[in-house]
Amino acid sequence: MPKLITTHTRIADLGIPRIIVIGGGFGGLEVIKGLKDQKAQVVLFDKYNHHTFQPLLYQVATSGLETNSIVAPFRKFFNNHSDFYFRLAEVIKVKPEENYIETSIGGVKYDYLVIATGAVTNYYGLSGVHKYASSMKNIVDATKLRNKIIRQLEYALLTEDEEMMNSLMDFVIVGGGPTGVELAGALTELKKNVFPKDYKELDMREMDIHLVEASPRLLNGMTKQAGEKAQEFLTKMGVKVHLNTAVKSYDGYEIILSTGERLISRSLIWAAGVKGNPISGLSSEVVSPGGRLLVDEYNRVKGHENIFAIGDVAVMDGDKKFPKGHPMMAPPAQQQGKRLAKNLRNLIIKRDLKPFQYFDKGSMATIGRNKAVVDMKGIRFQGVFAWYVWMFVHLMSIVGFKNKVFTFFSWMWNYFSFDRSNRLIIGRNEEKIVEEEPKQEFVNINS
Amino acid sequence: MPKLITTHTRIADLGIPRIIVIGGGFGGLEVIKGLKDQKAQVVLFDKYNHHTFQPLLYQVATSGLETNSIVAPFRKFFNNHSDFYFRLAEVIKVKPEENYIETSIGGVKYDYLVIATGAVTNYYGLSGVHKYASSMKNIVDATKLRNKIIRQLEYALLTEDEEMMNSLMDFVIVGGGPTGVELAGALTELKKNVFPKDYKELDMREMDIHLVEASPRLLNGMTKQAGEKAQEFLTKMGVKVHLNTAVKSYDGYEIILSTGERLISRSLIWAAGVKGNPISGLSSEVVSPGGRLLVDEYNRVKGHENIFAIGDVAVMDGDKKFPKGHPMMAPPAQQQGKRLAKNLRNLIIKRDLKPFQYFDKGSMATIGRNKAVVDMKGIRFQGVFAWYVWMFVHLMSIVGFKNKVFTFFSWMWNYFSFDRSNRLIIGRNEEKIVEEEPKQEFVNINS
Repeated sequence: MPKLITTHTRIADLGIPRIIVIGGGFGGLEVIKGLKDQKAQVVLFDKYNHHTFQPLLYQVATSGLETNSIVAPFRKFFNNHSDFYFRLAEVIKVKPEENYIETSIGGVKYDYLVIATGAVTNYYGLSGVHKYASSMKNIVDATKLRNKIIRQLEYALLTEDEEMMNSLMDFVIVGGGPTGVELAGALTELKKNVFPKDYKELDMREMDIHLVEASPRLLNGMTKQAGEKAQEFLTKMGVKVHLNTAVKSYDGYEIILSTGERLISRSLIWAAGVKGNPISGLSSEVVSPGGRLLVDEYNRVKGHENIFAIGDVAVMDGDKKFPKGHPMMAPPAQQQGKRLAKNLRNLIIKRDLKPFQYFDKGSMATIGRNKAVVDMKGIRFQGVFAWYVWMFVHLMSIVGFKNKVFTFFSWMWNYFSFDRSNRLIIGRNEEKIVEEEPKQEFVNINS
Repeated sequence: MPKLITTHTRIADLGIPRIIVIGGGFGGLEVIKGLKDQKAQVVLFDKYNHHTFQPLLYQVATSGLETNSIVAPFRKFFNNHSDFYFRLAEVIKVKPEENYIETSIGGVKYDYLVIATGAVTNYYGLSGVHKYASSMKNIVDATKLRNKIIRQLEYALLTEDEEMMNSLMDFVIVGGGPTGVELAGALTELKKNVFPKDYKELDMREMDIHLVEASPRLLNGMTKQAGEKAQEFLTKMGVKVHLNTAVKSYDGYEIILSTGERLISRSLIWAAGVKGNPISGLSSEVVSPGGRLLVDEYNRVKGHENIFAIGDVAVMDGDKKFPKGHPMMAPPAQQQGKRLAKNLRNLIIKRDLKPFQYFDKGSMATIGRNKAVVDMKGIRFQGVFAWYVWMFVHLMSIVGFKNKVFTFFSWMWNYFSFDRSNRLIIGRNEEKIVEEEPKQEFVNINS
């Protein structure tokens, strides 16, 4: 294997085309898998050295799973590919006229470029939320949120002031999609099964969990029935669900809602939306208002012959069922990645391309122990069986056999013990999130 | 359970004595366990919310185990203790004349104080080493080292300069005790079994692993036979062992040895020594040159009636077999903790105290796959069987049933797959360790 990929060679020099994939999420991985043993040099750029299974980040944040169960190093996946290269770097800019990308470790030319950079949190211009809220897009976010949740309870032990205590013990989750719903459910289980044993000094009834959703119902991507059932589950578990309610501002302490209501919490978790994460260098005409790249039915970025975009960062014209683009979830990304790999193979041997067609397998969300909602082709069900289906599907989707086994074992452990043994604060002091730590003499209120 | 522990009350007010334990390492845990259901209020202060199983940190650093397998939250251990309190805080100072400690979250009085603050890395005044070397005393150190090892190889891909490449691919471990030996062995296994598949572009023969030891042999705490066998194992595996050699200076790049030899490496791992980590406020007369607190045979700090020190931070007079104090390892700390818990119970009911006696069960170190050295009462053995014994003893010592099962499964996985699936770089850019990242156009050296 040659030592370094080269900058200025293209087909003429290498003899084979170089395909650069930016981002190793669900879509990017499928492209690379589908190109195995093709006569092409495949180069993956990612700023992490591992794939992250984003649908389970919320379980890392709520101490249910260990970090390592949901991530897996790229190099392990593609050990057996013959002409695959990985580079740990951030891509700064694409120069389409030169077939060239600039990265944090240098520049490189491509024959075909696949942009699979996914999505980032959308704060809709709310700067206070951006500054103070926790988000849930990567493993560092999830670990920081786990640290924060536990640290807030440790801090709550130190105060006698009721408002201070509420600000530490109350949690506000914004966004009633799967992430928000699943997080609210998991937090409730911590509150019910774990924290009362850990924090006997606190009155856990004081821990309020709010779920704020701007639209009239939860789980907008699913059927009305699923949304209503999720709401019923959550409400019974004690979550305060606020529908038709948006967040107007947040200063790290006070949340002002569109209804005029105010909530006090030092922990606002923002799961209210994402936007595409395009790379710079492309004309603004191909970027949608949601930050997604406009692509044709072959996932080709409008106006470009050899630049493709897939997954969350792409929005496809022409699928009548999805006039606003496919949902920003794993399945469209994976299916587009698979299709694109085949089309790239066709391109190389100068065959015709096949247009992408989305096959909607349905969707699901879990709310808690024995509680999930599932919509599948014509069938909808909720409750225990849905929960089993949810677990099975997620277990099968986790990358790597070892991760599957560890996750399965963790779930069994959590189920039978009612415990969450990953309630750890790991990391350095810089992660402190309360600007001023409540510091005082322990007060004397009892004998 | 009353909400807050009180500051200024002592026996008279509470009706029962308050015992404060600083540090939840091996020693601190045993004290608290031994005080279960006693008529005493027990308060643990620690700056982490979890116990760390330090003997396996090196496996986290070399991608063999996940972080969470070797740590466990304190609150989980002591859920079933009736009058136990945990406080996440750093203890700043003790004021013995007031029976009072100052902490990062306020002050509190004690009736009995147990100092179990362990040890910190000893750089012996080498400021360059302190600034640039990796250390191995806690979970953050271990994770940072894991990140660094993998990142160095990612960087090595980017350069053509031979010296630059060597500086990235060579690793220098200083200290031939168990940590240094085990780390050198584990790195060699990464070099042999994992990296050649991951980094086909690199010539892994260029990866040198040096182990530098100031004394004439490895594993000074064990028998000569164990040390020689460890050296034989390591040398066969390709580790360059330098005996009778000390590090004179390090600038993040060049290591100058006492022999005059120079090594080039951006990765110096310092496992050459520890020193006691006493808390301030005690007279300098009770602190040994090694930073340990002088204690009598009851682990009572000299000159104090109600302040005790155990484990690495304590040095006991009067054990003829150990005139310089007991070894700074888990077993003396655990045994002292157990003894002290009994003595505190005796103190409370005004019975006589029993002096501590160390029972030396022997010691062991693992070098790699099927290779370990064991010294036990009169018996010494090395090789495969020693390796099984090492694994069994460590598995039994890991705290928590779930951690035992996960660790066992990880070891089986690693053994049969020859893989290390935790080779992850997790964390933010602040963890970058090469001051100047090698950044350049990918050079054109091949077709």
